[in-house]
Amino acid sequence: MSATILDGRATARAMRREIKKAVAKFKKGTGVTPTIAVVRAGEDPGSVWYANAIKKTMAGHGMDSQLHVLPETATQEELVALVARLNADSNVHGIMIQEPMPKGIDEAEVKKALSPDKDVDGVHEVNAGRLALAAPTGRPAGVGPFFVPATPAGGMELMARHGIEFEGKNVVVVGRSSIVGKPMALLLMRENATVTVCHSRTDDLAGVCRQADILCVAVGRAEIVRGDWIKPGAVVVDFGVNDVDGKMVGDVAYEEAAEVAGMITPVPGGTGPMTNAMLCLNVLEAAKRSVLSA
Amino acid sequence: MSATILDGRATARAMRREIKKAVAKFKKGTGVTPTIAVVRAGEDPGSVWYANAIKKTMAGHGMDSQLHVLPETATQEELVALVARLNADSNVHGIMIQEPMPKGIDEAEVKKALSPDKDVDGVHEVNAGRLALAAPTGRPAGVGPFFVPATPAGGMELMARHGIEFEGKNVVVVGRSSIVGKPMALLLMRENATVTVCHSRTDDLAGVCRQADILCVAVGRAEIVRGDWIKPGAVVVDFGVNDVDGKMVGDVAYEEAAEVAGMITPVPGGTGPMTNAMLCLNVLEAAKRSVLSA
Repeated sequence: MSATILDGRATARAMRREIKKAVAKFKKGTGVTPTIAVVRAGEDPGSVWYANAIKKTMAGHGMDSQLHVLPETATQEELVALVARLNADSNVHGIMIQEPMPKGIDEAEVKKALSPDKDVDGVHEVNAGRLALAAPTGRPAGVGPFFVPATPAGGMELMARHGIEFEGKNVVVVGRSSIVGKPMALLLMRENATVTVCHSRTDDLAGVCRQADILCVAVGRAEIVRGDWIKPGAVVVDFGVNDVDGKMVGDVAYEEAAEVAGMITPVPGGTGPMTNAMLCLNVLEAAKRSVLSA
Repeated sequence: MSATILDGRATARAMRREIKKAVAKFKKGTGVTPTIAVVRAGEDPGSVWYANAIKKTMAGHGMDSQLHVLPETATQEELVALVARLNADSNVHGIMIQEPMPKGIDEAEVKKALSPDKDVDGVHEVNAGRLALAAPTGRPAGVGPFFVPATPAGGMELMARHGIEFEGKNVVVVGRSSIVGKPMALLLMRENATVTVCHSRTDDLAGVCRQADILCVAVGRAEIVRGDWIKPGAVVVDFGVNDVDGKMVGDVAYEEAAEVAGMITPVPGGTGPMTNAMLCLNVLEAAKRSVLSA
């Protein structure tokens, strides 16, 4: 066990103090309490659990949350109408639509109904497009303001707060999902890293991972990344959340990896708490924008 | 000189026959002639040349083009107003705004004024977002229909028509521009390639290139990629268009590279003619969509 732990809990705790201060200042200056509306149809257990976690996190940062639950039998039109109502509600600054949505609902259409300015989860096509089009940091972005999904944003923040530099680094991202892998790759490109995106069809996945100075894993398969996939001294960021016999484990075999890596995120307590902190930052940011544009 | 030439001229010629046939069928069925409007402010020589090329290409495929030129002194509001008028004109199916726009104009704001449904150049944030969010080919895309910038789309088509397979291949994209490098990387990811994006800040660029089964170069620096950067037998796709003493050369040192590569695009006559063909396809597609939604 030689790796330094990238402690997401401690980092999120430090961020909480900063965010609470910023929220308090914003509330004092504007009289407005930043508020997220969480939208769900049905009672998917993971979604129920996450909505509760958001409520607690928001409260812990001095912000409000609303929960809007439609029955499992809700139609797409009903969901879209709810989102439209929340778009128009000036007391709501951020909206998160929980997935999975009930069968038969076109998730892309519901997400399109979101106002990009309230899309604190970064799932709207306009926010994805602006991230894809944005110039490297340090230059004029060339796009309007946008929200980045909280999970990859949290991974970046966790690394940045541990002094990890990206420029010229060989970074491998395993997983190409729209909410973690691809935005993570685009964020890393913006920071001048050389980024390789791998996935289930990659030949010699272990060999590619072994070349990474920074290895980010988001595939949702328990402990698929083994210790001997890791370059000695590498930074390992594990976005995986897998339930194995009631125990939460990541996509990286932690004990093995920690012997080899230079720095590593634990699961739980790594990228998870950072996701919550970044979501709070996005809600505060959305509230600030709404006041500026009012 | 051992490499097979990826002949963009011959491929575009073959495509022209297909596109002409499809255009004729569409015109016969609908009475509508697919039409692109090219918008420009000022007389940038490259833009003037390209507008003429588009006009010729469109005519060669049985389609129409319009040219709308504002003076160099045009304001952003005037450009946006022109774009809005073309958005509303049912005789115009595709719109291309030429860059560079005059100084002081926020190019991002002008592009945002485009209707995504007429953005045949794939520069609108909605089209970029849908490409970034799209699932791998063969699965439901999970996004609405979108336009891909013609240059990377042409590179993909040229390779596909030469039987090059992407799945599991190690592909290196040099350059991370919004119009070539990044969309090329996203297109290749969709086809199950393992994609590495390099750029000017990459350490050991030559070494990374040397690992590529497929090497795509779009950096705009004459002959930066040398023969010894190429893995023997690799596919080399050169998007570069550089003027060196009045001669058009690519980003790859062609003579050297052709000794090593398995297949290679010449410059000129490689990716360039494919760009024109793909733009025509996008205009036809836009016309089809406009008729469907009318």
